[in-house]
Amino acid sequence: MRVLALLDGTIVDPEAPLLRADDLSVVRGDGIFETILVVDREPRELGPHLDRLERSARMMEMTLPERGAWERAARAVIDNWPWDTDPELALKLVCSRGIDDGDGTPTGFAMGMQVGPETIRKRRDGVAVVTLERGYAPDLMERAPWLLLSAKTLSYAVNMAALREARSRGADEVVFVATDGTALEGPTSNVVLAKGRTLITTPPNTGILPGTTQGALFRAAEKAGWETRVENFPAEELLNSDGVWLASSVRKITRIHTVDGTGIKVNDELHDEITGLYESNY
Amino acid sequence: MRVLALLDGTIVDPEAPLLRADDLSVVRGDGIFETILVVDREPRELGPHLDRLERSARMMEMTLPERGAWERAARAVIDNWPWDTDPELALKLVCSRGIDDGDGTPTGFAMGMQVGPETIRKRRDGVAVVTLERGYAPDLMERAPWLLLSAKTLSYAVNMAALREARSRGADEVVFVATDGTALEGPTSNVVLAKGRTLITTPPNTGILPGTTQGALFRAAEKAGWETRVENFPAEELLNSDGVWLASSVRKITRIHTVDGTGIKVNDELHDEITGLYESNY
Repeated sequence: MRVLALLDGTIVDPEAPLLRADDLSVVRGDGIFETILVVDREPRELGPHLDRLERSARMMEMTLPERGAWERAARAVIDNWPWDTDPELALKLVCSRGIDDGDGTPTGFAMGMQVGPETIRKRRDGVAVVTLERGYAPDLMERAPWLLLSAKTLSYAVNMAALREARSRGADEVVFVATDGTALEGPTSNVVLAKGRTLITTPPNTGILPGTTQGALFRAAEKAGWETRVENFPAEELLNSDGVWLASSVRKITRIHTVDGTGIKVNDELHDEITGLYESNY
Repeated sequence: MRVLALLDGTIVDPEAPLLRADDLSVVRGDGIFETILVVDREPRELGPHLDRLERSARMMEMTLPERGAWERAARAVIDNWPWDTDPELALKLVCSRGIDDGDGTPTGFAMGMQVGPETIRKRRDGVAVVTLERGYAPDLMERAPWLLLSAKTLSYAVNMAALREARSRGADEVVFVATDGTALEGPTSNVVLAKGRTLITTPPNTGILPGTTQGALFRAAEKAGWETRVENFPAEELLNSDGVWLASSVRKITRIHTVDGTGIKVNDELHDEITGLYESNY
């Protein structure tokens, strides 16, 4: 099930070709995107997602269609989704730099997709992760902006390869680790630890993507009296915390139950509290 | 000017959409490619390019359509190119992993494009390069295959960003440098040094793409009595050699005349000899 909308709000056939062969998204992964969870017609964290899309466009030095166009396309997808049979959708906003050697007009669209059974399973049962080297130092981002660390580009081949590596090791997900042992992020998620009544996540200046779902969780946690910290921590902390989660828009707050084959502490009550905090935003 | 062929050899309109919005090339940069120079109907290094496409597919764990299909598509583009007005073309072979959550059938096509005036200028006048940090160690590739170092994937956003950085510094091209100072490669080229009658290039086990054009040059140079070496060298060697070039399929053997704003030794006679060696293959 797919619903596809152009930026003027037109609904088009998702199974018909949309992109030219020389679109820079196709041949260069040269564009940016966001994926937004929509529940019962309500997009979650739409503002922060659009803010992050604009941030990625700045890092990529790309022309981005105006915010209203994205809101219009999102609304068109939501209005055309079969809500009676499917109470959730994953809404992808995609913007490429346009045609190779073209006039610079970006190509944009919004696509709604079903939330698949694999995602439902991960939300319910949690995930086994493997830690994988990311190969760079946590202070690289600020001195090497051309590496686009922390921009959400369409060039996701490495993220997809890391997930294949996890599956080949019998796991579901990955936590990338910097050269100094700092835990970074998942290929499509942020890492959150609980230590007592404190939640901790990795800072974006390590080159990770700032998380909209992690942000929503921390916002609610602070209101509820939790302390929150955004600071580097070594990957070993995954094994030594009261709870560890991956935060991502569509999988929401997924608990980690296994790290590199070792089972870690899982506290159902704490997990329910954390997911409850996140859900209290909506 | 574009000529576009499908893998069954059908010619299709290059300005009509070809890819679905949910093709993995579009949304994940999840595919591979090659760019081949064709001169007077003859593709250069077609065998090595197809070998490298197969190598990239293995590294990406992708199903690749059979070699005959690529040869057929390439032939269709070549047969439909306007040779009377354009004696060269850049032939791109592109293969994506197919539709997201689809049946796993890869999407492939071949596209012929004009060799632009910028390329002609670089071939004739040479290039100014900047050295840019690539952020990884030269021994990372072998222990972290999920980083896809040395696979020619469609996820080229970082390569494109590095070229924008070069232009913002008044240069044309980039030489990436590893964390230990080893010169790696350009975003779409290999680096070749001359020292006396020896040619030197960076080994692929540093995570760079093995070069088809560099390979053709070295093959001819060895026949002509040059010594060739494939070994790590520090980026400072760009300043201390008898000649320095970028080797790439479409730009061919382009001399570097400036490194980080400093003019370097340029020897016209040596440049003519080197480009003559490369051309002697055809």
